[in-house]
Amino acid sequence: MADLVGNLLVAQSGGPTSAINASIAGAIQEAGRHPELVEEIYGGLNGILGILNEDLIDLQEEKRHAIEGLKYTPAAALGTCRYKLDFKKQPEQAAQDLDRLFEVFQAHNIRYFLYTGGNDSQDTSLKIHEEAAKRGWDMRVIGIPKTIDNDLPHTDHCPGYGSVVKYNATTVMEIGADVSSMATDDGSCCVIEVMGRAAGWIAAGTVLARRTPSDPPHIILLPEIAFDEAKFLARVKETVQTHRYCVVVVGEGLKDASGQEVAADRTRLDAFGHPVLSGAAERVAEIVQQHLGTKTRTVKLGYAQRCAAHLASATDAAEAARCGEEAVRAAVAGQSGYMVKLVRDPNPPYRATTALQDLRDIANVEHRIPREWIAEDGFLPNEKFIEYARPLVEGEVKPPMDGGLPKYVVLEKARIEKKLPPRKAS
Amino acid sequence: MADLVGNLLVAQSGGPTSAINASIAGAIQEAGRHPELVEEIYGGLNGILGILNEDLIDLQEEKRHAIEGLKYTPAAALGTCRYKLDFKKQPEQAAQDLDRLFEVFQAHNIRYFLYTGGNDSQDTSLKIHEEAAKRGWDMRVIGIPKTIDNDLPHTDHCPGYGSVVKYNATTVMEIGADVSSMATDDGSCCVIEVMGRAAGWIAAGTVLARRTPSDPPHIILLPEIAFDEAKFLARVKETVQTHRYCVVVVGEGLKDASGQEVAADRTRLDAFGHPVLSGAAERVAEIVQQHLGTKTRTVKLGYAQRCAAHLASATDAAEAARCGEEAVRAAVAGQSGYMVKLVRDPNPPYRATTALQDLRDIANVEHRIPREWIAEDGFLPNEKFIEYARPLVEGEVKPPMDGGLPKYVVLEKARIEKKLPPRKAS
Repeated sequence: MADLVGNLLVAQSGGPTSAINASIAGAIQEAGRHPELVEEIYGGLNGILGILNEDLIDLQEEKRHAIEGLKYTPAAALGTCRYKLDFKKQPEQAAQDLDRLFEVFQAHNIRYFLYTGGNDSQDTSLKIHEEAAKRGWDMRVIGIPKTIDNDLPHTDHCPGYGSVVKYNATTVMEIGADVSSMATDDGSCCVIEVMGRAAGWIAAGTVLARRTPSDPPHIILLPEIAFDEAKFLARVKETVQTHRYCVVVVGEGLKDASGQEVAADRTRLDAFGHPVLSGAAERVAEIVQQHLGTKTRTVKLGYAQRCAAHLASATDAAEAARCGEEAVRAAVAGQSGYMVKLVRDPNPPYRATTALQDLRDIANVEHRIPREWIAEDGFLPNEKFIEYARPLVEGEVKPPMDGGLPKYVVLEKARIEKKLPPRKAS
Repeated sequence: MADLVGNLLVAQSGGPTSAINASIAGAIQEAGRHPELVEEIYGGLNGILGILNEDLIDLQEEKRHAIEGLKYTPAAALGTCRYKLDFKKQPEQAAQDLDRLFEVFQAHNIRYFLYTGGNDSQDTSLKIHEEAAKRGWDMRVIGIPKTIDNDLPHTDHCPGYGSVVKYNATTVMEIGADVSSMATDDGSCCVIEVMGRAAGWIAAGTVLARRTPSDPPHIILLPEIAFDEAKFLARVKETVQTHRYCVVVVGEGLKDASGQEVAADRTRLDAFGHPVLSGAAERVAEIVQQHLGTKTRTVKLGYAQRCAAHLASATDAAEAARCGEEAVRAAVAGQSGYMVKLVRDPNPPYRATTALQDLRDIANVEHRIPREWIAEDGFLPNEKFIEYARPLVEGEVKPPMDGGLPKYVVLEKARIEKKLPPRKAS
């Protein structure tokens, strides 16, 4: 394979996480080790949306310690987007966008393109890889996995997942101590809502808070298991009778047997006549309150859980950085059309290495929790899940503190001069 | 004053915090330094509710490192309660309870009684102190301040407050980075609900997340300032136009000009015809969504904020411990009927010492944020508030970790043999 000399462009896509910037740091640092091939290292602002607008920055203008600091800085330092090339729903727009992307790539001699993200973003990478081949534009495209949802196939787990689990399990443990210390004979039930529309990986991860069988969470409601109100209420009642309190974790996408989201409150319609989504925790707490009369409280962690870098997993951050490094190594070695994945050693102690997986195997495949990793009654993940998840939360990242609060990195974002006319408004 | 020899009883009351156990640790350790006066060190389970039931534990049976570990352990290790001696609403019950409390004190030769808590709990301490004098039962009663709400008078601030501010400000900073990195030209608005029914100290504290004028939170809605929908919407719109996103913090007790809680959704009634309390963040987000069409997300930290010991303030934990120590020193020195308070040195650098305040000055007085500490438009606390709050979040407690999650202390709770017939059910 002939050596390909040119510029590298890296961008971030999809929901931010505590670890996605670590992948960018790894990629930038590794790119710097190949000066004979990689001439300039650019960042695209707000994913492909920024690339379409030719909003590029010069990452070699950033301070070295700022790049290193990305390893403990949450959110997407380059900005992110949910924009995609949707050839199904908007074929004309997608074709026009793809043209424009290649105008930008060619104008800036982009020969290495790295894109971090989940399912949709890997699909974008695949389309760009295929288009490059079609156009004869010699460019290597590598996807870097990122999603708190942990639903990408083929990789053992996704960078970002370990950190959200570490934070959520800690939070559930702390809330459990709080509710437990207030529990008198009246009983009380706290319902904690966590992210996860389709897959329950995040909710399941809070099981790590249980060090003894009486510890919270006592019930985890997974989107994969149809919500059975009667069975659930019986379990809450039993738990309150035994422990005087009950901590319930619910994945936001919890569904009933008909597939309807439980969060949708059909007694309440918005201005357009659609049921108001009041939140899964609010809805579940209402059900408990109504039927058992138990005092209830709700917590909705929302965005807090995916950006809680003050309690990020060091394992997660290190793996995210390695995925970024591996993406560059693969690209400069001539690979294209792959996503970096994490492969777990089959034997303990826990160790994960990186490898490549064809992007065509990734797009539009969703990785679910195996049913045999969940207790038969559906209320808690079992030992198989715990064995899987436990190593992912090991170690603390410890961002530097300034005045008692974390000091995260903000990039300077030196803009690259635009060479093209503005993108046409569509 | 004659030396008073006998047993010490300490108990916890009101909502748990990240620092209340540090006060208990301080009290136990200081009590151990006065063996000539303090014979046994007992804990009352679940505040006066447990004392009424004679549920006492022997704190000298606990391991020394467990007591030290209370300094980083959240929630109330002895259990807590919201039970009070309510002579206004339930005079007979209150009188009967007071009788019973003194039966327990006398049966166990309690000569030192320490009670940690907020307003109501200090009122309980005052009543017990006065009753002891009336009955001629020689016992010293000292209150230890504790409340995340920071609304106790006379003390510069309350143990528990610094930790909730540290956690909440960090969370707002992290969520700000997240929302900012996703902000494209559409704009988005994240509304974060924090605790505080009457006082806005907690909401105001999140202002520490702002290191530059463009940093979030952009708007803080305090329960003290009547919610002006039009003015608020104009500010959100302006913020989104300037920064492309907007982070709003709202105190759960936000009220409109008529004094009605904003969280009460009057379009939606429960089975009894009362408006459903949907949560202040949900309500504020709905208003933004409805009038500006800006994409909104909500976070409700709930209990998570008051038990987040993984990010507790070292200043707060140390001061909480010192308040516990001071309570014992005051009691063995012959004082009774006081609450320990924190007094800030008038000159920098920040330093707080402990002193005593008559319990009669504490009960039923609520300490509010001075109006001159809030910007004229009511949307952000100003430099005076920041100067006050900043030192309280300094330093990290760092609980030990085990398997990537905090390892908090659970007490063994060796029960003291009961000497009385069971409390009569009322």
